[in-house]
Amino acid sequence: ASIGRTGMNLRCQCIKTSSNFIHPQFMENIEIIPSGPHCENVEIIVTLQSSDRVCLNPKSPWVNKVINRIMSRSKKTTEDQ
Amino acid sequence: ASIGRTGMNLRCQCIKTSSNFIHPQFMENIEIIPSGPHCENVEIIVTLQSSDRVCLNPKSPWVNKVINRIMSRSKKTTEDQ
Repeated sequence: ASIGRTGMNLRCQCIKTSSNFIHPQFMENIEIIPSGPHCENVEIIVTLQSSDRVCLNPKSPWVNKVINRIMSRSKKTTEDQ
Repeated sequence: ASIGRTGMNLRCQCIKTSSNFIHPQFMENIEIIPSGPHCENVEIIVTLQSSDRVCLNPKSPWVNKVINRIMSRSKKTTEDQ
């Protein structure tokens, strides 16, 4: 779950990824970096409430589920303005 | 598609959200901020290759689809280390 230096999108950010489940309530922020010339893997970096940053394995089924759950949980229907 | 000041998670980051389709190839980074005490909406902030940042409407069906597509597109199966 290590993260390399943060030169934006010059190379892959994640050195290792983790498949260990993290409960969404501990997630402060989830960053998805699509694959591209800088990195052949999509990268998913979660910032925890402890300020730790963890790279998640994008192939872990729970990752997809948790992200979909978080996205569907908006209380208010924000209208476009 | 405006974004407020970037005091991390003290309040909602998005002032307006957009439902206009953006092709994933123009997305450099997608940030998902779960709802919580600071903000009752989940917030999805996309950084474009132009460095512009756009808040997306989490209720837009295309947003969910694009994020799932991006996540499934990892070429290499990163193994946990």
